[in-house]
Amino acid sequence: MLVYLNGAYIDHTNASVSVDDRGFLFADGVYEVARVYDGKIFQMGPHMDRMRHGLQELRIRDYMIDGIPDISERLLDENNLRAGDATVYVQITRGAAPRAHAFPPPETEPTVYVIAKPFKQHPAAFFTDGVATVTVPDTRWSRCDIKSIALLPNVLANQQAKDHGAFEALFVRDGVLIEGSHSNLFGVVNGELITYNMCGYILGGITRQLILQRAPEAGICVREAPIQMENFDRIEELFLSGTTTEVMPISKVDNKMIGNGKPGPVTRKLQEAFKRWRSE
Amino acid sequence: MLVYLNGAYIDHTNASVSVDDRGFLFADGVYEVARVYDGKIFQMGPHMDRMRHGLQELRIRDYMIDGIPDISERLLDENNLRAGDATVYVQITRGAAPRAHAFPPPETEPTVYVIAKPFKQHPAAFFTDGVATVTVPDTRWSRCDIKSIALLPNVLANQQAKDHGAFEALFVRDGVLIEGSHSNLFGVVNGELITYNMCGYILGGITRQLILQRAPEAGICVREAPIQMENFDRIEELFLSGTTTEVMPISKVDNKMIGNGKPGPVTRKLQEAFKRWRSE
Repeated sequence: MLVYLNGAYIDHTNASVSVDDRGFLFADGVYEVARVYDGKIFQMGPHMDRMRHGLQELRIRDYMIDGIPDISERLLDENNLRAGDATVYVQITRGAAPRAHAFPPPETEPTVYVIAKPFKQHPAAFFTDGVATVTVPDTRWSRCDIKSIALLPNVLANQQAKDHGAFEALFVRDGVLIEGSHSNLFGVVNGELITYNMCGYILGGITRQLILQRAPEAGICVREAPIQMENFDRIEELFLSGTTTEVMPISKVDNKMIGNGKPGPVTRKLQEAFKRWRSE
Repeated sequence: MLVYLNGAYIDHTNASVSVDDRGFLFADGVYEVARVYDGKIFQMGPHMDRMRHGLQELRIRDYMIDGIPDISERLLDENNLRAGDATVYVQITRGAAPRAHAFPPPETEPTVYVIAKPFKQHPAAFFTDGVATVTVPDTRWSRCDIKSIALLPNVLANQQAKDHGAFEALFVRDGVLIEGSHSNLFGVVNGELITYNMCGYILGGITRQLILQRAPEAGICVREAPIQMENFDRIEELFLSGTTTEVMPISKVDNKMIGNGKPGPVTRKLQEAFKRWRSE
């Protein structure tokens, strides 16, 4: 499989970075995962906008962003990914330099890595029956709006879900269900669809944003507000959103059933709407 | 320069890791920096104990820890570092595997990287006159006791110090001066030497621990307690501690002078004691 690394298209098995790469030493970089439906990249513009935001917040040069879509398209071609589903993964770090916390000299070239690979869809039952989740304390830093590669807390949370046979871990901060370890969270509480407001505690998910913008088209009102654990019994529906998660119903949180355990009407309506949006 | 990477001693310029390394993709690993005085590694035991703690917390296999001291010694020999000061840097990640948040199969080999290199001592004036610091909000995660490579917040804080011509950035959480971006913090407040208590908000520094254990020998009482910003005017002395920082007086915080701007008597006494300890 051909991947892109720092200007060259090379075989994945040969793709390596220096031990001095600040991605390896300091988690000093950002990444994106875009979805490819039937060979076509979905929402590439918003993904690149978010990546540019991250690079600017970290003061990493962002000149290469404009070239990423073409690189991604070429990888889809070269790897015969024009049929079926795939993902494009992009990672940019501050580059390789002798180890020191502060930024290296400005001429240091960022490391740019892009890989496209087939995506194995989640089992259909995840979408029709819902998935189990567990709650974990939100130990993460307070700049989760930056899609950084400093993902260690997400790794540990996700593993905790796996240990419990669940699909996702939900971060709880100050009694609020914030988001998943690799997805955003929506809930229907007292008849109203809500999701945590944009701030440093959550990632501004591309699918989350799409739902906020287009749910009204599907006749659904949505508002940014916290899903409180103390109102747990009043949660009628819960679902995850994300690039690979799409709109995925949650059947259980810590073994407690959500609603009657089946995906509710708002979730189902949004699943249908999402199918239309992605094929436009 | 020869470095150690995954069982081989290779030239530093050839040392690279797969783009699938979980250190590069997820900051899924830990590191240590040990100090070498006159060719002799200082406090290697405590460094390895802390690394083992980190690996265990992250559930990364730790069988290789016992071999690290010998690897480090060989690197000091091979690179002619038996005279003068040096550092040994050790990094262990969960290894390379296809990208997915949860842990890879248990047979995945951790990545082990060790480098020894000459250490250029800080200017003598840093120790005799003290250094300037700036405060920054503590945005970090709440498991700072793990010396993980998820250092992005530390990078950003340290760069902020550099931008202001300061040596170190001090993290402030809930009105408390917690620690530096790559050092611990001690203060003399109301005549008493204090440092933040061990918990997930700070790293258990090796030099910090040495001071806590041995300050009484030097006739100094020390206690774990928070240095409150609201008591700023009652701070008589402040200093940083760390493997490369040693005992470094702080002359200024955000342009406000500490004491009379000169290292105080407790700091100076500990600097003398530290010189004795390191040459024992």
